[in-house]
Amino acid sequence: MIRVTVWNEYKHEKEIEQVKKIYPDGIHSCIKQFLSKEDDIEVRTATFDEVEHGLTEEVLSSTDVLIYWSHALQDEFSDEVAERIQRHVLSGMGLVALHSSHYSKLLKRLMGTTMTLRWKHDVSERLWCTAPLHPIAKGIPEVIDIPMEEMYGEPFDIPKPEDVVFTGWFSNGYVFRSGCSFTRGKGKIFYFQPGHEMNPTYHIPEIQKIIVNAVRYCYPDGIDRALPQNERIED
Amino acid sequence: MIRVTVWNEYKHEKEIEQVKKIYPDGIHSCIKQFLSKEDDIEVRTATFDEVEHGLTEEVLSSTDVLIYWSHALQDEFSDEVAERIQRHVLSGMGLVALHSSHYSKLLKRLMGTTMTLRWKHDVSERLWCTAPLHPIAKGIPEVIDIPMEEMYGEPFDIPKPEDVVFTGWFSNGYVFRSGCSFTRGKGKIFYFQPGHEMNPTYHIPEIQKIIVNAVRYCYPDGIDRALPQNERIED
Amino acid sequence: MIRVTVWNEYKHEKEIEQVKKIYPDGIHSCIKQFLSKEDDIEVRTATFDEVEHGLTEEVLSSTDVLIYWSHALQDEFSDEVAERIQRHVLSGMGLVALHSSHYSKLLKRLMGTTMTLRWKHDVSERLWCTAPLHPIAKGIPEVIDIPMEEMYGEPFDIPKPEDVVFTGWFSNGYVFRSGCSFTRGKGKIFYFQPGHEMNPTYHIPEIQKIIVNAVRYCYPDGIDRALPQNERIED
Amino acid sequence: MIRVTVWNEYKHEKEIEQVKKIYPDGIHSCIKQFLSKEDDIEVRTATFDEVEHGLTEEVLSSTDVLIYWSHALQDEFSDEVAERIQRHVLSGMGLVALHSSHYSKLLKRLMGTTMTLRWKHDVSERLWCTAPLHPIAKGIPEVIDIPMEEMYGEPFDIPKPEDVVFTGWFSNGYVFRSGCSFTRGKGKIFYFQPGHEMNPTYHIPEIQKIIVNAVRYCYPDGIDRALPQNERIED
Repeated sequence: MIRVTVWNEYKHEKEIEQVKKIYPDGIHSCIKQFLSKEDDIEVRTATFDEVEHGLTEEVLSSTDVLIYWSHALQDEFSDEVAERIQRHVLSGMGLVALHSSHYSKLLKRLMGTTMTLRWKHDVSERLWCTAPLHPIAKGIPEVIDIPMEEMYGEPFDIPKPEDVVFTGWFSNGYVFRSGCSFTRGKGKIFYFQPGHEMNPTYHIPEIQKIIVNAVRYCYPDGIDRALPQNERIED
Repeated sequence: MIRVTVWNEYKHEKEIEQVKKIYPDGIHSCIKQFLSKEDDIEVRTATFDEVEHGLTEEVLSSTDVLIYWSHALQDEFSDEVAERIQRHVLSGMGLVALHSSHYSKLLKRLMGTTMTLRWKHDVSERLWCTAPLHPIAKGIPEVIDIPMEEMYGEPFDIPKPEDVVFTGWFSNGYVFRSGCSFTRGKGKIFYFQPGHEMNPTYHIPEIQKIIVNAVRYCYPDGIDRALPQNERIED
Repeated sequence: MIRVTVWNEYKHEKEIEQVKKIYPDGIHSCIKQFLSKEDDIEVRTATFDEVEHGLTEEVLSSTDVLIYWSHALQDEFSDEVAERIQRHVLSGMGLVALHSSHYSKLLKRLMGTTMTLRWKHDVSERLWCTAPLHPIAKGIPEVIDIPMEEMYGEPFDIPKPEDVVFTGWFSNGYVFRSGCSFTRGKGKIFYFQPGHEMNPTYHIPEIQKIIVNAVRYCYPDGIDRALPQNERIED
Repeated sequence: MIRVTVWNEYKHEKEIEQVKKIYPDGIHSCIKQFLSKEDDIEVRTATFDEVEHGLTEEVLSSTDVLIYWSHALQDEFSDEVAERIQRHVLSGMGLVALHSSHYSKLLKRLMGTTMTLRWKHDVSERLWCTAPLHPIAKGIPEVIDIPMEEMYGEPFDIPKPEDVVFTGWFSNGYVFRSGCSFTRGKGKIFYFQPGHEMNPTYHIPEIQKIIVNAVRYCYPDGIDRALPQNERIED
């Protein structure tokens, strides 16, 4: 079984009527629901307001893949917890980072760059698969039409991804590396742009399938979860 | 003119007799000397003991490429200065990171990984050029014999490099990605393994030429040195 | 001096009135003209109807960078000459392959794939720079609006490029890896999508600048033009 | 079931006593034997002397992954069959290319380069895993000692691999990108250096496990085996 923890800030859903309608129990509950249908995945959730944001040493040690959504409370997120998650990723925990989490302390720590980009609300998107043989693309149509999303546009200040699995086309003339894979330490990371809280993107079956695939891809199958260490070689 | 600042911890050279003999005025002075022979490069130096390690906002703002050597005082290095250098790299300042600086706060911040590896003193190395068309390889022989170096061995916990320009062969049976290029933000980075303080590696002409090439490669020619920013697109 | 040969099929310009108006002396003459303004570049041209398509052993031996445009006569192109060009690329001659030349014998030989794609005439394009630090992007705006072009769309069956320097956004909902760099043997290759014969794309100053940059990037500066060889190592 | 065809030239084993002792029924039989132990793999073999080298349209159409070993008869191999195999790879058939097959017509067609390298018989090798998270590295020790192999050394004239999964260290001072992954069309390709006919390398359990992993990695799971096509987009 792949042990997934879905972490969500869970703020907008409680405060903004439009978001509440789309995700009445929070984005994390929506994601938990569709992941739970998979036989090889077991899911729990955690949110910002819990002690240590619900991401204690114990929780992370028993998590194979962390799904992470954040937006309004990036600055308020604990430095200590961000460092802790980073350490677990470097030790092998997979990470699926969604939408505005690109600008989280966690992603900035793992990527080393500013993670800046361009953005605009309410633009229609066509999500092109640009690496159709990648495991995350398995069974995914070559293009997915998302009626309305938050446009993210280049330049996106990230290190060169290992693969650009999806490229976003936006009706207002912008493009974006919307699905990017990285490895950091023993941890596999997938960043995925779709998922603005004001649009019902995580209810789209193809988007759900991409997240399911990403979980399987990032799963540290057979990986010893020890942090990489320096080693002195003796004669 | 490419404005280079050579930064060196400058500790071993003052404390260890063997190192003093090899680099009587410090590693930074040796590097400054051979860089100064190039018509398009002007060099100054800075060291750990200076105020703010000699890497003030003013110094970094007027530096095109920073060469960086560190080892014994990694933990003592100022967090604030490490963050400042990172910011300048992301804004376009080039970085040539030498030898044990892989384990500096700066490199860990920029790479996001543990930067761990294997090591052993006094091993002979053959440095193979494995990307002969890379600008840093220009005019460099396909193999350079280094009679004695500190062996660094895989696994080297770094993000996948853009190019592995040099691969180290060590007589005790290890290999290493010894010359690796990266981009972070607007900054080009070259990490280069040779350069243990107990061995006279920076006196080898071919090694000097690699560092000269790396300076030219990392030079932010025509780059606006503003930090990347988020931008909201209006209708 | 960089010795450039601009090769053009030169068929449409003689047969189709609309093309004749845009390129009265052929696409090759247009490209020659703007390249000739550069102090470090000297240009000659060759076309399909010349003996051996004008690409004799002698011409290729004295060419540093070949610019190549083809379309209607791909099948009629000499196998022997295609192999000869390939050999010169592997020996270090740079290659800037334009638009429909993706489907030439030459490109198929060098890439090994089918080189297939999607296409549609008369679509407006926005050409995004997606690797702003690449030498070919130097001085190029982050986006170039091309009022009308032939849309090329993914999936584009090419090997993974070293860098996707430009990504095309098309108004009909498609994206394309429009500017791709490769290395084959000692030769640097840049494939560039814009340039349909029915649209005046090579008259756009920014497009011209990209081609100038590509010539400089692909120039085999300091490269020994011998074909790579097997070598038996003796004791 | 993954349908594997192991193709072997099967010449040295019949002509050279030393080779006959190591592989009495041919390299293909040895490989068939250890692959047959896997529950998800079914294996057949084919050799040079069969009609159409045993690689008819029918055989290739029902092959998921082709393992390919060639050496002495590279020039004698049928152009038509080489082109046919290439077409099947581009349509999705996986390819595990072993040792001296780097210099086959097939590999040259798929890679587009000269595929040249350095070589020397009877050198001891240490095979380092340099991409430990790659699926082909699963369960493989970080280093495998091969008492005696044919040394292959850089420069190896190949396109930049997607991943260098293994790097060879040779006791005579050379290094080599010994395990390289590529994608061409819909086909996944793994090139693997160990396997000189005069050394019993394919009897080593860890080497066998790498080949098993490579078969699973190259398996076109869920891929429609149609050759990529151009497509005209209508309004």
